[in-house]
Amino acid sequence: MIVTVTVNTALDVTYLLDRITPGEAHRVPKVLARAGGKGVNVSRVLSALGAPTTVCGFAGGATGSEVAAELADAGMTSVLVPTSGPTRRTVTAVDRSAGTSTAFYEPGPEIDDAEWRQLDAAVLELLKDASMLVLAGSLPEGAPAATWERMCRMGREAGVPTVLDSSGPALVAALDEHLLAVKPNEHELVDLAGHISAAGDPPAGPPLDVPTALALTRRLQARTTGLAVTTLGARGLLAVLPDGQALLARPPQVAGNPVGAGDAVTAGIALGLTGSESPTTWLPRAAALGSAAVLADQAGDVALDHLDALSARTTLELL
Amino acid sequence: MIVTVTVNTALDVTYLLDRITPGEAHRVPKVLARAGGKGVNVSRVLSALGAPTTVCGFAGGATGSEVAAELADAGMTSVLVPTSGPTRRTVTAVDRSAGTSTAFYEPGPEIDDAEWRQLDAAVLELLKDASMLVLAGSLPEGAPAATWERMCRMGREAGVPTVLDSSGPALVAALDEHLLAVKPNEHELVDLAGHISAAGDPPAGPPLDVPTALALTRRLQARTTGLAVTTLGARGLLAVLPDGQALLARPPQVAGNPVGAGDAVTAGIALGLTGSESPTTWLPRAAALGSAAVLADQAGDVALDHLDALSARTTLELL
Repeated sequence: MIVTVTVNTALDVTYLLDRITPGEAHRVPKVLARAGGKGVNVSRVLSALGAPTTVCGFAGGATGSEVAAELADAGMTSVLVPTSGPTRRTVTAVDRSAGTSTAFYEPGPEIDDAEWRQLDAAVLELLKDASMLVLAGSLPEGAPAATWERMCRMGREAGVPTVLDSSGPALVAALDEHLLAVKPNEHELVDLAGHISAAGDPPAGPPLDVPTALALTRRLQARTTGLAVTTLGARGLLAVLPDGQALLARPPQVAGNPVGAGDAVTAGIALGLTGSESPTTWLPRAAALGSAAVLADQAGDVALDHLDALSARTTLELL
Repeated sequence: MIVTVTVNTALDVTYLLDRITPGEAHRVPKVLARAGGKGVNVSRVLSALGAPTTVCGFAGGATGSEVAAELADAGMTSVLVPTSGPTRRTVTAVDRSAGTSTAFYEPGPEIDDAEWRQLDAAVLELLKDASMLVLAGSLPEGAPAATWERMCRMGREAGVPTVLDSSGPALVAALDEHLLAVKPNEHELVDLAGHISAAGDPPAGPPLDVPTALALTRRLQARTTGLAVTTLGARGLLAVLPDGQALLARPPQVAGNPVGAGDAVTAGIALGLTGSESPTTWLPRAAALGSAAVLADQAGDVALDHLDALSARTTLELL
């Protein structure tokens, strides 16, 4: 069972509109609402692929109840630690004629010390039956900076391989904890450059060219015991393995909504690493999962019916 | 006690942002959320003015709980009929640099027959102690078209004077029920033109010039036993009394957020009509209340500390 932890859970609300006129009022024909946050999205993709997974995170107030109810409706297992503050919402207004989305992210609730301890206890309990721990997303404002580091250590001590999809100091602090994989996107990789490289100017970009992305991903990998995988958007998925081998999986170009594609890739990496296949087999599928997420209308969904075709058309290059 | 009925209750959420860029994601520094819907807004202004008032309406689901909790926090009395569907939200994103607001109105829940009957029963019960009934707002999709007409009849049969702030067929259907006052805005007045006038083209506008607005308001008044009051935005408040006298109250020009100004005017009309003052006394104050609402930052608030000064500078003209 793959346990995902999301400390910045949300109720993701989507308003699909034909057209949005700034400064005007709009009647929303239909409201889509679902549980969100990066770990939740990873579990949703895993669940769609038939992989046993449990969501762990915080939920509070009326929105927290909606998060819990939606996860149950979707047939997903969750362990949610109650918070005194209400779970945040995100509101995304989609302008279908322009093909753009304008999003508003509410701030999350303040989490107190007792609530953090309860989350740790919940994760520890889940680690007893876990085949893998996936920690995903940024830390909410006010969260202890060592939160991911502490949970990575819990994973290591429980002997559960851990994948970390985060950014900045929270990621860097956890790099010594024998991670199985880290997965920044190219923005996060550039932000990391100052932390993982002693000398030289930070690289220009993103977008990064492949040699620059490869050099940075190599440096990141050198700081961990596991893989470093960088998502380069439509340019593919770049992995540096513990033995130094570098792979670039390029899925076919697709048009659509890129929100949530990174989470689908993380699900693909977690699933690949729990099996016995080699990275040359599962990395292209993880890249194709990202493209299948872009194809799906709603952020966080994956167009599974296109996955096989996308996988077949994904190329793999040894760098 | 003034009873207000709101059949399209909402949780009104406001995101105050320095700047909104369409197509981008925005972190919301602070979320403002309060109970809304026109009748709720009227009660909020009455409550701020110290007038006893009770909110009556529907509330369902997690948002309905938030509506109930916010009303209680604000010290307002409410009788809320539970619905199986969740109360809607409205989300208003304010771009402070542009001085504009982009709003998204979710659809309300479907109200079933049993829930409508429960609302009728709640209103009947409240009418026993009511000095006035205020019915405000449009009917939600799927509501029986005769809803306001039925409640106006309940008010008449209970001997409780009734003010109706609505529009279209729902307003027209109720005109025979011995209303104390009707209060369209100029958009609603133009929409009514076809219903209240047998001949002639509908008027151009809004904005309407005062003679045109006066002619239409006179026709509307002729269909009721009470006053007809039309809000003309910054151009003032136009009233035609049952004896045919016409008054125009012009408050000073103010800049700000006009959302909710009409509800403040309705509160001023209701309060004026419960007292023994003549319309020449209370109409200017109702107009000034509208301006005090424009001055307040948050939609639905009234800048009460400016009310006396605004009232003093409001002119009254006999037309």
